[in-house]
Amino acid sequence: MKNIDELCVNTLRFLAVDAVEKAGSGHPGMPLGAAPMAYVLWDRVMRHNPAGPDWFNRDRFILSAGHGSALLYAILHVYGYGLTLEDLKQFRQWGSKTPGHPEYGRTVGVEATTGPLGQGFGMGVGMAIAERFIGNCFNTDKHPVMDHYTYAIVSDGDLMEGVASEAASLAGTLKLGKLIYLYDDNHISIEGGTDIAFTENVRARFVAYGWHVQHVSDGNSLDEIESAVKKAQKVEDKPSLIIVRTHIGYASPKQDSPSAHGEPLGKEGVTATKKALDWPIDKSFYVPDNCAAHFKETASSGAGFEDEWNRLFESYKNVYPDLAEDFEHVQSGALPDGWEKNVPVFSGDFAPIATRTASGKVMNSLATALPHFLMGGSGDLAPSTKTILIGYGDFGFEKACAHNLHFGVREHAMAAAVNGIALHGGALPYGATFLVFSDYMRPALRLAALMQTHSIFIFTHDSIGLGEDGPTHQPVEHLMSLRAIPGLTVIRPADANETAVAWKIAVSRGGPVCLALSRQKLAVLDPSVFPVLKGCLRGAYILADSKSDVPEIVLIATGSEVGLALKAQTELESRGVSARVVSMPSWEVFEEQTGKYKNSVLPTDVPMLAIEAGSTLGWWKYVGSDGAVIGLDRFGASAPGKVALEKLGFTVENVVKQALKLLEDRR
Amino acid sequence: MKNIDELCVNTLRFLAVDAVEKAGSGHPGMPLGAAPMAYVLWDRVMRHNPAGPDWFNRDRFILSAGHGSALLYAILHVYGYGLTLEDLKQFRQWGSKTPGHPEYGRTVGVEATTGPLGQGFGMGVGMAIAERFIGNCFNTDKHPVMDHYTYAIVSDGDLMEGVASEAASLAGTLKLGKLIYLYDDNHISIEGGTDIAFTENVRARFVAYGWHVQHVSDGNSLDEIESAVKKAQKVEDKPSLIIVRTHIGYASPKQDSPSAHGEPLGKEGVTATKKALDWPIDKSFYVPDNCAAHFKETASSGAGFEDEWNRLFESYKNVYPDLAEDFEHVQSGALPDGWEKNVPVFSGDFAPIATRTASGKVMNSLATALPHFLMGGSGDLAPSTKTILIGYGDFGFEKACAHNLHFGVREHAMAAAVNGIALHGGALPYGATFLVFSDYMRPALRLAALMQTHSIFIFTHDSIGLGEDGPTHQPVEHLMSLRAIPGLTVIRPADANETAVAWKIAVSRGGPVCLALSRQKLAVLDPSVFPVLKGCLRGAYILADSKSDVPEIVLIATGSEVGLALKAQTELESRGVSARVVSMPSWEVFEEQTGKYKNSVLPTDVPMLAIEAGSTLGWWKYVGSDGAVIGLDRFGASAPGKVALEKLGFTVENVVKQALKLLEDRR
Repeated sequence: MKNIDELCVNTLRFLAVDAVEKAGSGHPGMPLGAAPMAYVLWDRVMRHNPAGPDWFNRDRFILSAGHGSALLYAILHVYGYGLTLEDLKQFRQWGSKTPGHPEYGRTVGVEATTGPLGQGFGMGVGMAIAERFIGNCFNTDKHPVMDHYTYAIVSDGDLMEGVASEAASLAGTLKLGKLIYLYDDNHISIEGGTDIAFTENVRARFVAYGWHVQHVSDGNSLDEIESAVKKAQKVEDKPSLIIVRTHIGYASPKQDSPSAHGEPLGKEGVTATKKALDWPIDKSFYVPDNCAAHFKETASSGAGFEDEWNRLFESYKNVYPDLAEDFEHVQSGALPDGWEKNVPVFSGDFAPIATRTASGKVMNSLATALPHFLMGGSGDLAPSTKTILIGYGDFGFEKACAHNLHFGVREHAMAAAVNGIALHGGALPYGATFLVFSDYMRPALRLAALMQTHSIFIFTHDSIGLGEDGPTHQPVEHLMSLRAIPGLTVIRPADANETAVAWKIAVSRGGPVCLALSRQKLAVLDPSVFPVLKGCLRGAYILADSKSDVPEIVLIATGSEVGLALKAQTELESRGVSARVVSMPSWEVFEEQTGKYKNSVLPTDVPMLAIEAGSTLGWWKYVGSDGAVIGLDRFGASAPGKVALEKLGFTVENVVKQALKLLEDRR
Repeated sequence: MKNIDELCVNTLRFLAVDAVEKAGSGHPGMPLGAAPMAYVLWDRVMRHNPAGPDWFNRDRFILSAGHGSALLYAILHVYGYGLTLEDLKQFRQWGSKTPGHPEYGRTVGVEATTGPLGQGFGMGVGMAIAERFIGNCFNTDKHPVMDHYTYAIVSDGDLMEGVASEAASLAGTLKLGKLIYLYDDNHISIEGGTDIAFTENVRARFVAYGWHVQHVSDGNSLDEIESAVKKAQKVEDKPSLIIVRTHIGYASPKQDSPSAHGEPLGKEGVTATKKALDWPIDKSFYVPDNCAAHFKETASSGAGFEDEWNRLFESYKNVYPDLAEDFEHVQSGALPDGWEKNVPVFSGDFAPIATRTASGKVMNSLATALPHFLMGGSGDLAPSTKTILIGYGDFGFEKACAHNLHFGVREHAMAAAVNGIALHGGALPYGATFLVFSDYMRPALRLAALMQTHSIFIFTHDSIGLGEDGPTHQPVEHLMSLRAIPGLTVIRPADANETAVAWKIAVSRGGPVCLALSRQKLAVLDPSVFPVLKGCLRGAYILADSKSDVPEIVLIATGSEVGLALKAQTELESRGVSARVVSMPSWEVFEEQTGKYKNSVLPTDVPMLAIEAGSTLGWWKYVGSDGAVIGLDRFGASAPGKVALEKLGFTVENVVKQALKLLEDRR
């Protein structure tokens, strides 16, 4: 006779196995091996409330090994997070709440979309950063209103990924003591035993990062796992890794075999496994009554955690009414009334200024309007990306409400952490680096778009205009590649004022936004002359129309090329050609406008010439078969920025020439 | 009075400082601190021959800290690699041989393009893999014809990057004893001291990876550095990291300050530094005569190394003429006559087969035609990517000529290593993973394109058609994002025969090629019916023309959507609409064809409908303003592949509907 814990663990195992079997695809091996540690976390350790899944101070859990999704779904079912048995039976089917990998926003209780390895690891670090940031800003000795742990189950695949290495080193530097990861150490990867590719000493590596590392020799020992977690909780100045020796496909014929990855056990395999664990072989999706009762009891005790916290917060509210109001604000993510007033307007007599520098000014102004909210940092490029919030302190182990993070040269972990902070809630995070290095962050940028997290990515040095650093540092294809990611908003402002509006969009829009900013100085568009403040909000707008009623040609430009277009317009007008200049800072925002508006800006019957110091690839959608693009379908070159731009065709002369050629070709 | 070594080190320092000063931009700090270790390597340690920079068995050197390029250029000047003083004076100027970061192919002696941090670290691992692979395949006890070290200077930025962590773990697993990295440990990053973001114990981390780690306490002690390197050479079963404590901006007013990064010292700073090191302050770009003589002597002794090797190879040739012939073949990279005969043709009665599976067959057939040449592996997905070369062994520490690499779940290091293998020469490397994870490799893919290395990237599971794994695993924007990278060839074959041709292109083309392959089975295009074998070589071709002389519509498709287009064609013909089907496996190859050919395939006066299960972004270039695209500008969804494709519009019905709509709109 199994005890209740064993029964409940096996319930999780077989809910997962049955779901995979019914779907005819998925990963049964991980749930069989890792069910005990998941059970310990959700049953004995975590302060969570299935009836209040959004409770702000809940412990967070991430299944970084997202391929084990069936295990997470089994848990969310048994603890009453709203997943029904029917949902489990719809595992991996169109429109179900139980997709192949956990998807944030689709399934209550899923804290992060995982599957691409290493990302969950990195996002957890972000959540722990958010927890400390909020705690440092709001907690008092007697009122730890933000005080929870962040847990994850991670796999060998996670630990092999560079993003996890970066995140681990960062977490160690920041001494994130409330981060506790359980490593499902099953010694098996898809190509074979982990010894064929992964012989490093994981324990020693994490100790080197500054982590507290423990080892659990028997992944089926609930008590051993529990005591390790409890011990980890007590280590306040180090993140914890608990290496749990498990067996992939535990108790199945595929135990300890790579084939337990990524394919169902098969009918016979399922039967054999159920037999091996004394499970009724004639039942599937089976939850024994005593387990159902046990899970229910655990779930309802969760309400107690939230009640307790509510009482704490009531007291906090009484003693610190202002702080409490701020806290509720950041928790909700609602922006304070009138925050936009802090978005500066740059007058026409403002000296030329790089949009990266303008962005720094805007951010600093916004920081005061968004107290305890806007925070972030750069991948060791803050002096270049102009992303320091002056006077807001350096985030570290000290208990100070400090807003500036030092991510180190770890762009990928930075992006994952920014996503984790956004997922956690209570802060509006940004991460900054050069645009060319957005490539290093791409898997995390994609997840931000998929999850629609409110992550802000600041990319400076946005074209060959950055100059001497040369082609390794000059973005070419990056704007277009970012635009290709569904759900990601890319904004490339033309001057300081468009930069201010871009920030307004980034702060208020909700989903992830990338800002592409210049290294070089750009003339300020006088807002009393140009409709820049309103126009920019629509993604693209007529910046300077032609003198004639109908332009002969439309010049569309973004960012630093808008100034070029304006000069070309003057030159064209002097040659008797009436041209309209359209500034198009954001394709995505423009696409959301009405067809009528879009047509009024870019009339299809007028020839169009797009100018952007980047890949031409997507521009044909706007300029059409009869249009032309001045872009860059080659790598840049090391030279002073002005020279590089000139040599590669970004001159008034060339714009005028191409415009005239285009008109000629049409005649 | 300084001794000759000190003088020569200072010569390197000030050549670099003067170059940065003249350019008005660049990094003087790294050369000042790291010149001694560079000098030790090039003067006392490395077996290199400036007169024979392509000598196959030379020691390789990578400046992974590419921002210190001025130091490398100084070295290449003094040892006579063909850089003149005039070249140094043209540092960072348009068209010069001395760009901001070292560029492979632009400057003799530069073994790899570096600058994006971590990449050089990863490429060095690839070079060491290539060295061992070739050695294992060709060396005999008495004839170690491939037997050299790979050195690099790496920075804290390199070590923070995830790609370097992955590469380090891989190198440890593979026990790459001939890899020796010197870490320029200057304690300074751009945002401040490394302690703000990088507190890990680097020594312990690398020991955990299985590296041999040493510490040199005085970065100015040539003897200490030399003896550490000599010791590292003796450790045959572990890669070596030598942590050299240096001072950024050594002897300058900016010593040990972040401002020594990324900006010149300024006139006064240069003078102060020269004074501090007893250097003539009135001279710039100065090489003392005795140093010039010393450098020359070292350089000419290099010829001895190559001569010695030539004698060894002559003896090898006598004893093992066949092996020697093969060796010369792989060294040259020339393909053996008739290799194409091994590219299989799939007959029309071949059962439907996934292009990933067809690719596996083609690769295995090619392996026998390209002895000791084609090699590579996957990021722990070999059973899924079908990239195992059967019977060709697992590459490891054993001295066997084994072709299959196990990269582990380290896509980024895989790509960097593949580039390194390609740069080394003597092997044709591939790396494989799912297309969606090309995002993890992107910085290395970009470098492959910039360097034009012969790197082959195999990306399977190339669309939502992969099914249940869901949006985290389903590529959408990836084809377009890869096409946006200048100089990268992307091929998405429609069936087994196009896959064979794709491989033919990949093997013979020279530059980097990405293959996008299906998870799902696709019907084989009968080569006796369709012009698939010749057509595919042109990037796009008329696969099945309309019955009428001039088609009413052209359906352009790639990969798995080509079969859909063929079915839609039949359906359209049955409705009296004559349609042409164009298969377009590679945009880049198609763009190289004549205008006449391109026009004959895609006539501008016929409406066009493109079909591809991916981002529509770039298709407007081909279909024009009057065309249409059936694509995917949203994320996919977890469901069986067929369902996902159906629900998202990839059905014969929808293609026909859109085609008819397009024709109607034109009427």
